[in-house]
Amino acid sequence: MNDMSAPFPPRRARINDVTINLTHGAGGKAMRDLIQDVFVGAFGQPDAAAMEDQARVPLSALARHGDRLAFTTDTYVVDPLFFPGGDIGTLAVAGTVNDLAVSGARPLYLSCGVVLEEGLPVETLRRVAESMRRTAEAAGVRIVTGDTKVVERGSADKLFINTAGIGVIPAGIEISSARARPGDAVIVSGHLGDHGAAILIARKQLALEADIPSDCRPLNGLIDAMLAACPDIRCLRDATRGGVATVLNEFAQDSGVAIRIREETLPLRETVKGACEILGLDPLYLANEGKLVAVVPADAAERVIEAMRAHPDGRDAAVVGCIAERPRGAVILETGFGGERIVDMLVGEQLPRIC
Amino acid sequence: MNDMSAPFPPRRARINDVTINLTHGAGGKAMRDLIQDVFVGAFGQPDAAAMEDQARVPLSALARHGDRLAFTTDTYVVDPLFFPGGDIGTLAVAGTVNDLAVSGARPLYLSCGVVLEEGLPVETLRRVAESMRRTAEAAGVRIVTGDTKVVERGSADKLFINTAGIGVIPAGIEISSARARPGDAVIVSGHLGDHGAAILIARKQLALEADIPSDCRPLNGLIDAMLAACPDIRCLRDATRGGVATVLNEFAQDSGVAIRIREETLPLRETVKGACEILGLDPLYLANEGKLVAVVPADAAERVIEAMRAHPDGRDAAVVGCIAERPRGAVILETGFGGERIVDMLVGEQLPRIC
Repeated sequence: MNDMSAPFPPRRARINDVTINLTHGAGGKAMRDLIQDVFVGAFGQPDAAAMEDQARVPLSALARHGDRLAFTTDTYVVDPLFFPGGDIGTLAVAGTVNDLAVSGARPLYLSCGVVLEEGLPVETLRRVAESMRRTAEAAGVRIVTGDTKVVERGSADKLFINTAGIGVIPAGIEISSARARPGDAVIVSGHLGDHGAAILIARKQLALEADIPSDCRPLNGLIDAMLAACPDIRCLRDATRGGVATVLNEFAQDSGVAIRIREETLPLRETVKGACEILGLDPLYLANEGKLVAVVPADAAERVIEAMRAHPDGRDAAVVGCIAERPRGAVILETGFGGERIVDMLVGEQLPRIC
Repeated sequence: MNDMSAPFPPRRARINDVTINLTHGAGGKAMRDLIQDVFVGAFGQPDAAAMEDQARVPLSALARHGDRLAFTTDTYVVDPLFFPGGDIGTLAVAGTVNDLAVSGARPLYLSCGVVLEEGLPVETLRRVAESMRRTAEAAGVRIVTGDTKVVERGSADKLFINTAGIGVIPAGIEISSARARPGDAVIVSGHLGDHGAAILIARKQLALEADIPSDCRPLNGLIDAMLAACPDIRCLRDATRGGVATVLNEFAQDSGVAIRIREETLPLRETVKGACEILGLDPLYLANEGKLVAVVPADAAERVIEAMRAHPDGRDAAVVGCIAERPRGAVILETGFGGERIVDMLVGEQLPRIC
């Protein structure tokens, strides 16, 4: 879409089309005008001389942030596009920012590739682009390159967005799902399952009057605060599809340890708990889009929790368990009644198109 | 999908599923198994300790290649998935490699985000992943991170692939669509419109017996040879959607110059020419996936052409025109009969879902 090194020509007239048609993906004038209006309009004027096919940034500018590049991608197909607490645009920026930030990286630049269904209202695209702009601004990242494809009516469901992201990991930060050690503490950053419950309600699959907004948000600010309190965070991951249970299983398997969780310490809203009971869902598997799971050395747990609770995105952070030696690879939930059960990886499908 | 720094655990059993179902996108065990089987199976064992959500690479390793990072993305929605000369996998790697290479960058790493329609044969995905592997190997790039989403039957057409790519631009290379100057020579690397014609034939929209394979291929090797012959290449772009006409218009507008093209010098296959005449298509607007347009200083044109013709991907390279001062922003075609016509940007839709 552009270049990061000099000013765009000023041609950002508003297009007249009300809906997306196939010419908007044909590579010619209509596509260029749509991109200029909707995307360059929202994401702002990069310091670009020309519409290049790639963004460019000096390596010296990256090296100011650390010593390793982090690179990630996610495609977003959430249904519906708009839900309480966010939309596919919020999600597409926050999700990829979070995938970078959980490596300890400072998220810097995003790409944005959209697949549009013929007939999509241009106004819908404008709203989504505006959400992306707002979320990118909140996260301190820039959307610097993109691509637009249009498919015939019925060949895609309204709008899919892919974002890829690059960031830079500061020297000395070594976060990995393979670094949990017996004795370490397990932390979650807040209430579980808000995003999953919000999507269920938005789809009217849940006959609930409850108002549960999605927790969808960039977590890089919270992670900065955590790393300031403890640069030696062992494992860190945002708990999206598959929920907290899946992240814990990944940590247990990749580190070759057991993870023990105490049920009564899990932060859970009464409304989400109630919804799960009615539907037979387990909140440990419900998707989140603004919650993370961390493993930290036991002696750092208290100061990490303190730093998290001082941040708006970690107010309900809690230590929920600890790392044990055996059984290797297993996640064990200690229930309120002194019982225990194995928490496996998600085996079936809980909710399709949750993100 | 992974990390670039230590070995994957050896769990690459072949999955038994014949078709894709919603659990393959749910974030749990079925998704992990599909990724391990199809993608890690094809793209190879990265030096990774664990399935991290982001790839990581030392900035010092990037700095060996140059001084600026290039970053780009494209989503591929081509219909049909398989066509003579390639498939959506070849395209998804070659297209993004080319978007990096035309900046002069050495393409290094790709991400891969797929949207799968429920019911897609797993075997189709395996074939596409194998094409991606083969094309990445040919281009010398590695696919290091990815994402898999599954949507319900009817919510997407079989398979869409997004790739984002990062590469590094060597010091001193300054390619930009804004650098064409009066007197410069305009070069195209070979026969025009092969990809567009191949797709038309594959869709049976062209009642032709002609065998025109797509030209879909990575062009970074050819570009290396061109840069060795002339490090001061002014403009360079692969002519995909919108064809050579669109690229020339972008150069003319971004550089504020006129471009004059001589019709009889345009390299064109008789079969493609015939197909265009039958259908009323203009080969200047037909899509290519392995052809580029370059603007070089006049005194370098001969040695650039020589270097191109010595490379298998540039055997039919030709000087097709030159840069003039006026009319600024216009592309003018000199026809065989001494006439002239303006070649505008593509205004309507020529062929949907060409890439």
